[in-house]
Amino acid sequence: MTQPVKGRVTIPSENNFYEETLKIAAQWHADAVRDSDGTHLDPRFKDNHMKIYNAYFPVRGHNDFISQHREEIPEAYLMSERVVATEATVTIAFAEAYFDQQLQPDYRHDPKEYWQVYDRTAGVVIDPVQWSVDQAHNTITVTDITPWHEFTVSFLAYCIWDPVEMYNHLTNDWGDKPHEMPFDVLQPHSHEFVLAEMKRWLADHPEVDVVRFTTFFYQFTLIFNKHAKEKYVDWFGYGLTVSPRMMAEFEKATGEKLTAEDFVDEGYYNSPFRVPSDHFRQYIDFVSQFVSETAKELVDLVHADGKEAMMFLGDHWIGTEPYGKYFSHIGLDAIVGSVGDGTTTRMIVDIPHVRYREGRFLPYFFPDSFNEHNDPSIEAKQNWIQARRAILRAGMERMGYGGYLSLAAKFPKFVDTVTQITDEFRDIHAHTQDTKPQSNLRVYVLNQWGKLRSWQAFTVAHAIPNKGSYTYYGVMEALSGMNVDVHFLSFQDILKNGIPNDADVLLNMGDEGTAYSGGDVWQNPQLVAAINAFVHQGGGFVGIGDPSAVRYQGQFFQLKQLLGVEREVGYTLSYDKYFTEVTKDHFITQGIDQFNWGESKLGVYSTDEATQILEYSNGEIHLSAHPFGQGQGVYMTGLPFSFLNARLLMRAIYYAAGATDRITQGYADNPACEVSLFPETHQYCVINNSAEAVDTTVYLNATSKHAVHLAGNAIEWGSLK
Amino acid sequence: MTQPVKGRVTIPSENNFYEETLKIAAQWHADAVRDSDGTHLDPRFKDNHMKIYNAYFPVRGHNDFISQHREEIPEAYLMSERVVATEATVTIAFAEAYFDQQLQPDYRHDPKEYWQVYDRTAGVVIDPVQWSVDQAHNTITVTDITPWHEFTVSFLAYCIWDPVEMYNHLTNDWGDKPHEMPFDVLQPHSHEFVLAEMKRWLADHPEVDVVRFTTFFYQFTLIFNKHAKEKYVDWFGYGLTVSPRMMAEFEKATGEKLTAEDFVDEGYYNSPFRVPSDHFRQYIDFVSQFVSETAKELVDLVHADGKEAMMFLGDHWIGTEPYGKYFSHIGLDAIVGSVGDGTTTRMIVDIPHVRYREGRFLPYFFPDSFNEHNDPSIEAKQNWIQARRAILRAGMERMGYGGYLSLAAKFPKFVDTVTQITDEFRDIHAHTQDTKPQSNLRVYVLNQWGKLRSWQAFTVAHAIPNKGSYTYYGVMEALSGMNVDVHFLSFQDILKNGIPNDADVLLNMGDEGTAYSGGDVWQNPQLVAAINAFVHQGGGFVGIGDPSAVRYQGQFFQLKQLLGVEREVGYTLSYDKYFTEVTKDHFITQGIDQFNWGESKLGVYSTDEATQILEYSNGEIHLSAHPFGQGQGVYMTGLPFSFLNARLLMRAIYYAAGATDRITQGYADNPACEVSLFPETHQYCVINNSAEAVDTTVYLNATSKHAVHLAGNAIEWGSLK
Repeated sequence: MTQPVKGRVTIPSENNFYEETLKIAAQWHADAVRDSDGTHLDPRFKDNHMKIYNAYFPVRGHNDFISQHREEIPEAYLMSERVVATEATVTIAFAEAYFDQQLQPDYRHDPKEYWQVYDRTAGVVIDPVQWSVDQAHNTITVTDITPWHEFTVSFLAYCIWDPVEMYNHLTNDWGDKPHEMPFDVLQPHSHEFVLAEMKRWLADHPEVDVVRFTTFFYQFTLIFNKHAKEKYVDWFGYGLTVSPRMMAEFEKATGEKLTAEDFVDEGYYNSPFRVPSDHFRQYIDFVSQFVSETAKELVDLVHADGKEAMMFLGDHWIGTEPYGKYFSHIGLDAIVGSVGDGTTTRMIVDIPHVRYREGRFLPYFFPDSFNEHNDPSIEAKQNWIQARRAILRAGMERMGYGGYLSLAAKFPKFVDTVTQITDEFRDIHAHTQDTKPQSNLRVYVLNQWGKLRSWQAFTVAHAIPNKGSYTYYGVMEALSGMNVDVHFLSFQDILKNGIPNDADVLLNMGDEGTAYSGGDVWQNPQLVAAINAFVHQGGGFVGIGDPSAVRYQGQFFQLKQLLGVEREVGYTLSYDKYFTEVTKDHFITQGIDQFNWGESKLGVYSTDEATQILEYSNGEIHLSAHPFGQGQGVYMTGLPFSFLNARLLMRAIYYAAGATDRITQGYADNPACEVSLFPETHQYCVINNSAEAVDTTVYLNATSKHAVHLAGNAIEWGSLK
Repeated sequence: MTQPVKGRVTIPSENNFYEETLKIAAQWHADAVRDSDGTHLDPRFKDNHMKIYNAYFPVRGHNDFISQHREEIPEAYLMSERVVATEATVTIAFAEAYFDQQLQPDYRHDPKEYWQVYDRTAGVVIDPVQWSVDQAHNTITVTDITPWHEFTVSFLAYCIWDPVEMYNHLTNDWGDKPHEMPFDVLQPHSHEFVLAEMKRWLADHPEVDVVRFTTFFYQFTLIFNKHAKEKYVDWFGYGLTVSPRMMAEFEKATGEKLTAEDFVDEGYYNSPFRVPSDHFRQYIDFVSQFVSETAKELVDLVHADGKEAMMFLGDHWIGTEPYGKYFSHIGLDAIVGSVGDGTTTRMIVDIPHVRYREGRFLPYFFPDSFNEHNDPSIEAKQNWIQARRAILRAGMERMGYGGYLSLAAKFPKFVDTVTQITDEFRDIHAHTQDTKPQSNLRVYVLNQWGKLRSWQAFTVAHAIPNKGSYTYYGVMEALSGMNVDVHFLSFQDILKNGIPNDADVLLNMGDEGTAYSGGDVWQNPQLVAAINAFVHQGGGFVGIGDPSAVRYQGQFFQLKQLLGVEREVGYTLSYDKYFTEVTKDHFITQGIDQFNWGESKLGVYSTDEATQILEYSNGEIHLSAHPFGQGQGVYMTGLPFSFLNARLLMRAIYYAAGATDRITQGYADNPACEVSLFPETHQYCVINNSAEAVDTTVYLNATSKHAVHLAGNAIEWGSLK
């Protein structure tokens, strides 16, 4: 390992821990210090050479103010539980399912104007003359209805407890500490207050170098139930941005009138897995434009004060849309985000229009990880190894940690592990000089969201596995460290501009009818024709799960013709299915004989003798390839993350692209290992993603290969000259 | 065992095997003798006391006739393979995928009038001016099309080789034996010929007692591919009933014009798993009315000749619809069908409007079962045991076998086994005197077909397991021998007449979007309200697989409110799923701790704390129960047949019905055993469905129980007095 470059590391600290912090900071070569939730930096840092970050919460922590303007508390549209009417009248305790310390019905605005009672069985809105509200009991009584139908109430509620503060409060048992009420910067008093408070704070904090916004104005959707437990979480949710004023402003700007159902969405609340409605797309656009303009006001104040503005990717980040068209307008200097794995690393480091990006690594220095029963160095190491592949692909200017340093300091093995990690991090920079590694192919991930949700597809709550999505999330994770350029493309992009000229492979995955698979858009002949042409003329298509799935014109997979497989959803049982023989010695499965398909799709079968079946079990196909003109289609049933699956996907992508000869351009034949080439600095590295020592053959190109022995999790650098 | 009653058994025989037949017939107490495909009875049977059955094929075996009227050969609409156009013109070898010895394009009728070229990508029919046919090469060239779209040709073809004869011919390698061409009784010459030939044949066969029609006029759909292998089989298919004349007659009768697409159905050919279109329902009605009228002409001739008319349930049975409204009109004396299992037994013996029903048991006396490497007595025994449960439920007047008796005679162990089976069969009659057993509950199986497809749901090819349906077929099989009355109900029945007053339990099962689950009908509020009311007022609902599934108004299971579970199809990942705890000691799972869910549905979760989760694994529910008003909903993910699963279903049905106290009305606590009560004859029996000896406690009612030891597969009778 060459000499580490100093810096690039942010260390948390707290009051009365100054000397100890300096000691650890020296060990980690930290050049910046930060506060955390509930900590304050020792004043002596003012005179220290380290950069000072300070967390800043624009829309909470000022109950004095918001108590005077409760009408400016953010709101949400909530749907009651579904209630079956047993007679022609039904009474619905509409707020019953929700945590009343978080959510309170909004009776300020006329329910008859803003709320909706739905007959969900008939799919119709009930005329407001048929219902009345009992404010004392939070019930609605609906009359003259059809018995045995099911009814819901969609109502506006104030979110009187900031969800993140609520979460910390409840998790850490903060007792009678007052609940922080958030405020909505769209409202006049709040807007004025937020700006004035920013100015005041800047004047009070000359020592601060970096204002770490945590975050701006709208919290992602986080709704608790009557047991004070999480009921609904959507890390991308716009649920808490709504208000009668926002709806009115939207209508003024677009001419479109929104109703409760635009937010409630049958109870699905516009989950990003839903194919977004036109209204929801417009709404995202509208809110994010507003957020960017208002965030810019704060950032301009920060800049005017000679400080840097950094945004935390999380919490009140809704509407910032870092991959959207208004983000650059905010004028941020930096972004910081929590590193959960390779995918979340890319979610941070691929963000454009900032000067630097910082990863906040795990574990957070909290007692849940730092206690006598746990060795936090294990999680630290795993977290680093998961992120490292992604950092090698896309860079990351800085790293850091968060929480109570005084707690972490009690774990010397952990402190040592982070010393190694930070050294390794800087060493990467020393070798790469912030240049990009070689990419052999360009892959476009195709879904309803496209670029707006770059690296965000299949996330429900940030970096938390979900039974319904881990099978696809594994693909994101595999891609995050693969030696290909990854881009995100929407169906609308194709319909508007065609398939990008530089695309080697299109990748479409997800469950039938979701935004990621695509849903009804696959009935659009222009889309299917464009992909047919692309692949037939030599492009690659990789489909995972239910790619191109919609029940239309005799097919379930609308790209069956190029995938060579179809899924039996019940309509083709009368057809004999003869093709079951597995093609041995195929490029894709070379060296791989263990498979894990996750929540695998049932009943995929070959429709064509040209289909190369690569894995067949339980009477169905889980992996196959198929020629189509000059191109190839590859089908996989699912791909949870593992090193072996990442390798499988890599080989599948190269095969689909017709680029099997390019795979030796930076390759290790041991699936635990990956090779990155940095042509500009004439360097390459080999990483061992496994904790075990391994042997592998390293290929730098078609003619150069050599054997390497790597210790567990090692990274080794070499020269390309 | 009491003294067996003689008779009730039909034995096959053949020429030059008279004495040997009499010997075996005496052993089996057979009282009827039959010919089989390719055999003729010895003339001496004329003078024997045994009844003589003779197979009769009305629409094949007369190539001399049909060669003169080739325009009267039956037809089918076939769809070409799908072809992607790479430019604005495409040529499609439309017949290429099919077996040209079976199917030949019909150029007699103008292709421009009857055929269709489809742009399947755009979902539109191409104007016939854009295409031309090359009859010499069986190709169609389509011009001025959108490149990269996919095209199909739907064309009429003559079925020049009778599919069943073709199957036997190819399977038994009959070489240059002429192919039997079928003829269509709708056509004038064929109609005249069929009647004349029937008269001639009757005059020639005074010795015959029973004319065994094999069958009437229209073969179920059986289409072979270019490799002379089965391509498509639908035991219920109307594919081979079509002709321009049939379409014209249909239009005359209904005013509705049919097109190729009414038959091709996007390439699904109106599989019974498809929700039937209005046109297809009308077409079934129209054809079956015609078939019943024409079959009656033959049956009347048979009766006029003093003979009985028996129909084989299979082969050319299409349009007879034994559970339809025209079947009684035919005036048949008897029905005979192949016994594959309990379900197919019920499919035969539940047929109304005939005097007696005969089961033809397996194995068929053909060399595939009767060879030196196989012990056919094993299959015989298994077949009997599978059928016996159903026979005890519903009766079966006669049984028999088919094939070459001379071959079977070489297997003395087999002959002995059948001796035991026939004795046991007659013994059942001795005890039951053809009375009905006690039923404790009434179960209605709810789907798009209702009564018309009684016991036929989930069959693709008769008694042949199918990966896509065995998970539901197992439910039919379990019901076939259960001590409940089973009825079949369509959604249309409920919408027209409500839920029958005598219903205890509704059962809905199948995959999303199929005719068995129901598809879009679940958006009909009248249907959902009727079932809500039924269950809330005390009824039971059992849902299996994707019951009530359609993506509508925030739910996938439209009866979620009564099932207490929902399936995650991708839209509710943001909701926390807290309910995972299994309810122990539940009535449904009592005594059952091994589960097999078949092609299980992924992602079913509880939405309600009242849901009793009965099996939870892989992070999902496979079995649960839920109260709803006075009634109960039960959910199961799938239920392939096993004795244990049959028991599980039985307990689930009793639980759903709120009739747990009635389960001791004829019950054995060993799941391998079942008890039938015959109150009219004061008899009961216990059967052991397993080949192993077992011990069980037998319950005759809530207060009477006793221990029983049963040999493998034993049946034991006792008195209820």
